[in-house]
Amino acid sequence: MMVSWYNNGLNTDKISIDDRGLQYADGLFETIAIRNGRPRLWELHSDRMQTGCRRLGIQVPDKVNILRSLVGVIEAEDLNENDALLKIIITRGQGNRGYAPPRDANATILFGVYQRSIYTADLYEKGVSVRFCQARMASQPQTAGMKLLCRLDQVRARSEWHDPEIAEGLMLDQDGTVVSGTMSNLFIVDGDELVTPEITHCGVSGVMRQHILALAVAHDLTVRVSRLSPDDVKNADEVFLCNSQFGIWPVSFCGNTRKDDWPLTRKMTSLLRESGVIEGLE
Amino acid sequence: MMVSWYNNGLNTDKISIDDRGLQYADGLFETIAIRNGRPRLWELHSDRMQTGCRRLGIQVPDKVNILRSLVGVIEAEDLNENDALLKIIITRGQGNRGYAPPRDANATILFGVYQRSIYTADLYEKGVSVRFCQARMASQPQTAGMKLLCRLDQVRARSEWHDPEIAEGLMLDQDGTVVSGTMSNLFIVDGDELVTPEITHCGVSGVMRQHILALAVAHDLTVRVSRLSPDDVKNADEVFLCNSQFGIWPVSFCGNTRKDDWPLTRKMTSLLRESGVIEGLE
Repeated sequence: MMVSWYNNGLNTDKISIDDRGLQYADGLFETIAIRNGRPRLWELHSDRMQTGCRRLGIQVPDKVNILRSLVGVIEAEDLNENDALLKIIITRGQGNRGYAPPRDANATILFGVYQRSIYTADLYEKGVSVRFCQARMASQPQTAGMKLLCRLDQVRARSEWHDPEIAEGLMLDQDGTVVSGTMSNLFIVDGDELVTPEITHCGVSGVMRQHILALAVAHDLTVRVSRLSPDDVKNADEVFLCNSQFGIWPVSFCGNTRKDDWPLTRKMTSLLRESGVIEGLE
Repeated sequence: MMVSWYNNGLNTDKISIDDRGLQYADGLFETIAIRNGRPRLWELHSDRMQTGCRRLGIQVPDKVNILRSLVGVIEAEDLNENDALLKIIITRGQGNRGYAPPRDANATILFGVYQRSIYTADLYEKGVSVRFCQARMASQPQTAGMKLLCRLDQVRARSEWHDPEIAEGLMLDQDGTVVSGTMSNLFIVDGDELVTPEITHCGVSGVMRQHILALAVAHDLTVRVSRLSPDDVKNADEVFLCNSQFGIWPVSFCGNTRKDDWPLTRKMTSLLRESGVIEGLE
């Protein structure tokens, strides 16, 4: 997989071992879809990044500067009319050994440019199969919602299956309620209601999830943020996943329950398309 | 602070940005006291590292090879008769983007040599002041006890105070019971009983804690691993902290409760000294 990294502006795939991102997972990241040279849902990504840095006491990058850097990377990588996947990592920077953050730490800002992930039409048209994972998410209300560097729970969950037919694994929290997929947020349809798990104890407040919620509200759909049991998901009328890269995937197999009709899911996909966020399938 | 890093044997302070240690905090570490050129409590460090790798499905380093590498680093850094602090980081290695661990990943093994931390005699003789932190530890029974790369909870806790008179902060779990310090384990003395919090939902199973527990049992002291409330700690007859670097620190001020006599703490320090693990103060 081709990837090109920029470390504080320098085109290099190296970072100091002393960086607190490696030493303590002291940082956060964003994974952004570049479509036709533009960062999709940029405002949501940018806001989450700013809020995250503020909550962790990491030097908050200037919004304009970081957008300027992003545009510079897009130019340098000749992506002006192309698609890509852009990962931005922000760490607290380098520092002495010890957990105490250095008072004068300068954040490390990394841009990584990957090829856009390509998903087959079947995933969108026939739906995806998902499984329930044994690996659970740690409960940590103090940082819930943030996209933290520490993804070990997701790594453990994603190690549980090798079957390429299974597109995603659903993860439970410490109480056994469903939080999300390993790399996506989850919605179910209950009657005419759109329901998504609350992100209060763990999980990431995904930008596509935020956008879908806003879109649903703007179109007078009933939305609810709630605790969902595995059975709520299995028995739901519809289930779909979303993330910044693939948009919306209907779920066809979920804990051995077959679903093959997704009217509200299709409506949300249409609304996404009409809002200009996705073109074609995603 | 002088530090020298070895990345898979190469003396360099750089690592690939693609390393999963940085990307996902997909790894663990050990912090080892080198005394007179020898790694203190090496068997305990080595065992925890092996168990940790096995639990995470990270390539398990050969025990003999890693000890050989360690000896090589000690020679290269001219530490044969000297003291130092050695940090070993093991990550799952490099890999493609995505949480799924690459099947053929080769672990990254980093050795970092720091100057030994120097602590004043007062900390051992008059005891240390500790505070209770607002930042709590995430609840995650599936990885509790391991020394994971992700230390963000500890970083958040350690950011709460700047007063150099406060040597350590105590952290609570999600239920409000005491787990440990940010960088140390905790013991209290209750009558003639030695009690330390259980490490079942979060926290690190520290090597010095393990050694002290074994030592206490070997000397027919009553030990108990239990849940402890903040009040249990405040009202305890004695409180002490331990870690691999400083050995044992009696706690003199704890949530505004003054303690100035530590008979059982002193006894444990003597036993540590007699067992050959510490010399002088630590």
